[in-house]
Amino acid sequence: MLNIGIIGAGRIGKVHAQSITFHVKNAQVAAIADPFMNDETKAWAEGLGIPKVSSDYHDILNDPAIDAVLICSSTNTHADIAIEAIHAGKNVFCEKPVSQDLSKIKEVMEALKGSNVKFQVGFNRRFDHNFRAVKQNVADGNIGDVHIVKITSRDPDAPSLDYVKVSGGMFLDMTIHDFDMVRYLTGSEVTEVSAYGAALVNPQIAEVGDIDTAVITMKLANGAIAVIDNSRRAAYGYDQRAEVFGSKGQVAVSNDTSSTAVVSTENGVTAEKPLYFFLERYMESFSREVSEFVDAVSNNTAVPVDINDGLQPVLIAKAAKKSLDEHRPVKLEEITF
Amino acid sequence: MLNIGIIGAGRIGKVHAQSITFHVKNAQVAAIADPFMNDETKAWAEGLGIPKVSSDYHDILNDPAIDAVLICSSTNTHADIAIEAIHAGKNVFCEKPVSQDLSKIKEVMEALKGSNVKFQVGFNRRFDHNFRAVKQNVADGNIGDVHIVKITSRDPDAPSLDYVKVSGGMFLDMTIHDFDMVRYLTGSEVTEVSAYGAALVNPQIAEVGDIDTAVITMKLANGAIAVIDNSRRAAYGYDQRAEVFGSKGQVAVSNDTSSTAVVSTENGVTAEKPLYFFLERYMESFSREVSEFVDAVSNNTAVPVDINDGLQPVLIAKAAKKSLDEHRPVKLEEITF
Amino acid sequence: MLNIGIIGAGRIGKVHAQSITFHVKNAQVAAIADPFMNDETKAWAEGLGIPKVSSDYHDILNDPAIDAVLICSSTNTHADIAIEAIHAGKNVFCEKPVSQDLSKIKEVMEALKGSNVKFQVGFNRRFDHNFRAVKQNVADGNIGDVHIVKITSRDPDAPSLDYVKVSGGMFLDMTIHDFDMVRYLTGSEVTEVSAYGAALVNPQIAEVGDIDTAVITMKLANGAIAVIDNSRRAAYGYDQRAEVFGSKGQVAVSNDTSSTAVVSTENGVTAEKPLYFFLERYMESFSREVSEFVDAVSNNTAVPVDINDGLQPVLIAKAAKKSLDEHRPVKLEEITF
Amino acid sequence: MLNIGIIGAGRIGKVHAQSITFHVKNAQVAAIADPFMNDETKAWAEGLGIPKVSSDYHDILNDPAIDAVLICSSTNTHADIAIEAIHAGKNVFCEKPVSQDLSKIKEVMEALKGSNVKFQVGFNRRFDHNFRAVKQNVADGNIGDVHIVKITSRDPDAPSLDYVKVSGGMFLDMTIHDFDMVRYLTGSEVTEVSAYGAALVNPQIAEVGDIDTAVITMKLANGAIAVIDNSRRAAYGYDQRAEVFGSKGQVAVSNDTSSTAVVSTENGVTAEKPLYFFLERYMESFSREVSEFVDAVSNNTAVPVDINDGLQPVLIAKAAKKSLDEHRPVKLEEITF
Repeated sequence: MLNIGIIGAGRIGKVHAQSITFHVKNAQVAAIADPFMNDETKAWAEGLGIPKVSSDYHDILNDPAIDAVLICSSTNTHADIAIEAIHAGKNVFCEKPVSQDLSKIKEVMEALKGSNVKFQVGFNRRFDHNFRAVKQNVADGNIGDVHIVKITSRDPDAPSLDYVKVSGGMFLDMTIHDFDMVRYLTGSEVTEVSAYGAALVNPQIAEVGDIDTAVITMKLANGAIAVIDNSRRAAYGYDQRAEVFGSKGQVAVSNDTSSTAVVSTENGVTAEKPLYFFLERYMESFSREVSEFVDAVSNNTAVPVDINDGLQPVLIAKAAKKSLDEHRPVKLEEITF
Repeated sequence: MLNIGIIGAGRIGKVHAQSITFHVKNAQVAAIADPFMNDETKAWAEGLGIPKVSSDYHDILNDPAIDAVLICSSTNTHADIAIEAIHAGKNVFCEKPVSQDLSKIKEVMEALKGSNVKFQVGFNRRFDHNFRAVKQNVADGNIGDVHIVKITSRDPDAPSLDYVKVSGGMFLDMTIHDFDMVRYLTGSEVTEVSAYGAALVNPQIAEVGDIDTAVITMKLANGAIAVIDNSRRAAYGYDQRAEVFGSKGQVAVSNDTSSTAVVSTENGVTAEKPLYFFLERYMESFSREVSEFVDAVSNNTAVPVDINDGLQPVLIAKAAKKSLDEHRPVKLEEITF
Repeated sequence: MLNIGIIGAGRIGKVHAQSITFHVKNAQVAAIADPFMNDETKAWAEGLGIPKVSSDYHDILNDPAIDAVLICSSTNTHADIAIEAIHAGKNVFCEKPVSQDLSKIKEVMEALKGSNVKFQVGFNRRFDHNFRAVKQNVADGNIGDVHIVKITSRDPDAPSLDYVKVSGGMFLDMTIHDFDMVRYLTGSEVTEVSAYGAALVNPQIAEVGDIDTAVITMKLANGAIAVIDNSRRAAYGYDQRAEVFGSKGQVAVSNDTSSTAVVSTENGVTAEKPLYFFLERYMESFSREVSEFVDAVSNNTAVPVDINDGLQPVLIAKAAKKSLDEHRPVKLEEITF
Repeated sequence: MLNIGIIGAGRIGKVHAQSITFHVKNAQVAAIADPFMNDETKAWAEGLGIPKVSSDYHDILNDPAIDAVLICSSTNTHADIAIEAIHAGKNVFCEKPVSQDLSKIKEVMEALKGSNVKFQVGFNRRFDHNFRAVKQNVADGNIGDVHIVKITSRDPDAPSLDYVKVSGGMFLDMTIHDFDMVRYLTGSEVTEVSAYGAALVNPQIAEVGDIDTAVITMKLANGAIAVIDNSRRAAYGYDQRAEVFGSKGQVAVSNDTSSTAVVSTENGVTAEKPLYFFLERYMESFSREVSEFVDAVSNNTAVPVDINDGLQPVLIAKAAKKSLDEHRPVKLEEITF
């Protein structure tokens, strides 16, 4: 039984605590820490049977009974806490992105050198049943050599302007999942990025220097071409699709819905909208990613999403931003690291 | 080039005239007759390049240049005209049903004995691309031995009460296509029928002794069980589906639509309704059935829908009516013929 | 926090224990009893944190701390244990069917008279997301007055002959869920049944007096006609569909799949098969039905599936068997109760 | 009745002759000319009832009875013949592209100035039922302001190297339809193009200086972003899809198939592949585009696809090629015209 400490008791920290308690075998939440620990969170933790709560994550790092930590704190603290945890000899599951600052990711990579702790990055969509089915078909050779990859990723609603201002920009905040997906589905590296973007959902987003709509094209090391289309707001819900096209055919996944019901009336033949909320859509993926992390730690095998998988999407996002700013294709090797 | 005379210039006669002119190879409409021949119809015939028009179908039967006739007159005249045509040595394509009166069908069968004219019945749905695909999969053994057959057949709107009164009843007027479909898809004969029916669309239909909604179950000679569900009115359009389930799997067809467009908004994910009108839905089947008739005549091969195929659905319809009236399963052998 | 005792630690008992532990709020498994209690089951119960295990269900009935029992024992013991539980003042959740013996159901109904315990029957499919969506659309009036109900229910594989012999027959063992579904979706009672059945999957099933393939037609009190088609073996998996057709349109649900992946190659456009196993397909429904039972007990409100809901499908199954045996439609009022 | 002369009796010329004869009202093929006129083509023309055949298109241009010409000759002759036809006072329907040479298109535009003949370009896909449904939904405002346009256009098989060498390159030969589609669906002009391309289907195509796989991104005057993905070879058939996403939702069309049949077996749930051949897929669009041309001529109304619609896709294709060659986004205004 692996003892896990969760650092950060915000939305995603709570999701992990619950999914570990109810769905992850061979692991239990032994402690949770949050600088804003309050009575409500304490009661919630008690309800889940979490024995230790703290407002200082060092209580977790210093606890010799803790085997692994989940870093679910705010993004700008990920890297520093990760480094502390590595030095404390804890296995680390770190929410994405490891950092928006490449030098910070480099520091984490340095810390990992010579260490034998496991380090996994929280790209949960790799553990989703739909995207796994695409990956499996590609890996099994069912569609032959990959020629074109298409990812549609649209949120159900745009975040607040206040959030946008501190988000690091759409590419680092939202598209980063899709950049990871391109690498995951193809098993190949992105070598060049060309981005178009605009603020079409909410013009005020342009005023704070960001975009809400984008089409990003990429060249891959294996010769394939990938394209992502993003919107911060799809009126019909959370739109999460992918297609991989190759020499022998295509595999595609469409959206999940709350039921298969189809209503036919004089107004048309109407099916359910996609699931609306990312937690609803991706709930199972959160327990699966932690289960595989627990397995990797328990069996001393490779983690499914390693630090390089944490680094590459940030590099791609930086290249995409540079492409948008400089209005030209940008090679990944141009991004200083 | 086969010279065809069309007897009856009502809706279906005109459809055949046009589809022969534009879509049927090796045949041409040489004449058309209708007792209510008028200037409008004459102009229409001239526009199609039909050289002869008449108000007396004997002009067609007596014309030695005519190789074959299409009997598109009112149902109660089909059999008598067919017998005359057979005696005149004309090959006959007769619209369904040959007759609602079994003794009349018997007379046609007698007339055919010793004759070497071709006689085809107009069960056009056998020539529809969807139902053909079901038949092909069944015939190819893709679903193994047939266990269950399901046919959904619902009209977009109920006919007028005046029509209902002279229609011969829903089973003979509407379900007859579905009875034929059961035989076509399975290649097996119906041996027993059990029917439930009611007037749920329009209670006045009950007052004139008919029904508008039915579920009819059948036993087949090959052991399979078939079920048809009918309604005179589907609010969303013309609903024409079939499933055949067997030891190795299932084949099913759904409705055709005017486009594949799907609109996703905050109100739902909406596709097109089924095509509304039977001519729109089954247009291609009308030219295909006549093409195959022309081929059978030209090459002296068997017609795809013969007089027994005309007889059996009428027997089944009679058994279904008897089942409904007597509130019990009725074997086909109970229907005196 | 409701204390639940589970009687019977077979497959379904274990499923309930796990789903209560992980998914049902305001309830916990306080004890589990099984006459074949062994070390393996004890270890499993300990792993779930169930404090009491026993080989005698009376230990549960006699425990004043237990608020409610789940009867998950073999079918022939349901009624007697239910009666004991009622007399012991325990709220009862009883797996379906309450009994295959109508007199036993009558005894349970007698025991409930004057008692104020809650009694719920385990027709879990009523809590399935797909069938709930159908029910909701019907209840909301989206399809108008109900005219035709169609249920397809096919198992992925036939049970062993040994099981078939003691199953009570396909109607009581398998179709009973579908009989309940007809009532649930329409909110109307079945008044008459007409059944066709055969052993087409495995002829040996006929030798032990049962069938494996059936089409059952029903008249409903509201005038609608319902039809169920069953097979003990669908080569492509567990086939669970429903359609309700009415004056304003139709609502239909199709199968759930493990992903939305569609692979297009030169061999065709291939989607996933339906989920194969009933536990996989209906897992969520098991926790939902118990959650609603817990709510009804906690809030002293009506249970969602009461003893009459347990009785009616057994009456329909008996009528269906009589129809099959006597080869005629059978009214429910003919079934002595 | 409009008298039409067809110039060019190759594949597309024959398609138009047949579809005019059988499907276009108020028009007839009065003559057909082809420099390689032979006995086979003469017999075919006679079979269709075309009264005049010639090996010299001037016979058509000089015939005062001819109201309009369809230019179906080889692409490099389109513009010159069009100019002659305009000068001869004939209304012109010209197959796409008008020319791959911008100066030639300019000459046609000059010839049209001061003339009052109608001039329509053969972008037939605008008349396809699926793409029309997309356009209609966009035009009706059902999806709000357009943000993202996605077009998938993949051929079933790559052309021969000999064809590729003289094709003018994939953008002018194949993608030109998709460039037109972007303009048609949005009603907005393309202002900038950024293209990625490679020869992934057949590396020999790279050796002759062309590509077979591409992703082309475009900025539109209305602010939207469009993306086209192309392949010369989709193993599963002719893949022709489009999506338009906007502020209120999305409209999408998928492929047409030869039937709606779905076969479910232990191997999966398999639907039909897309229609394979462009003539099969787009047959109806050929008669519709000519019908609308005939209407425009007959009623002296605007043609649905004018000379500017012929020009713009060529400009976009040139910009795409320049983008590919110079490895940067290219504004349309950079293309000298």
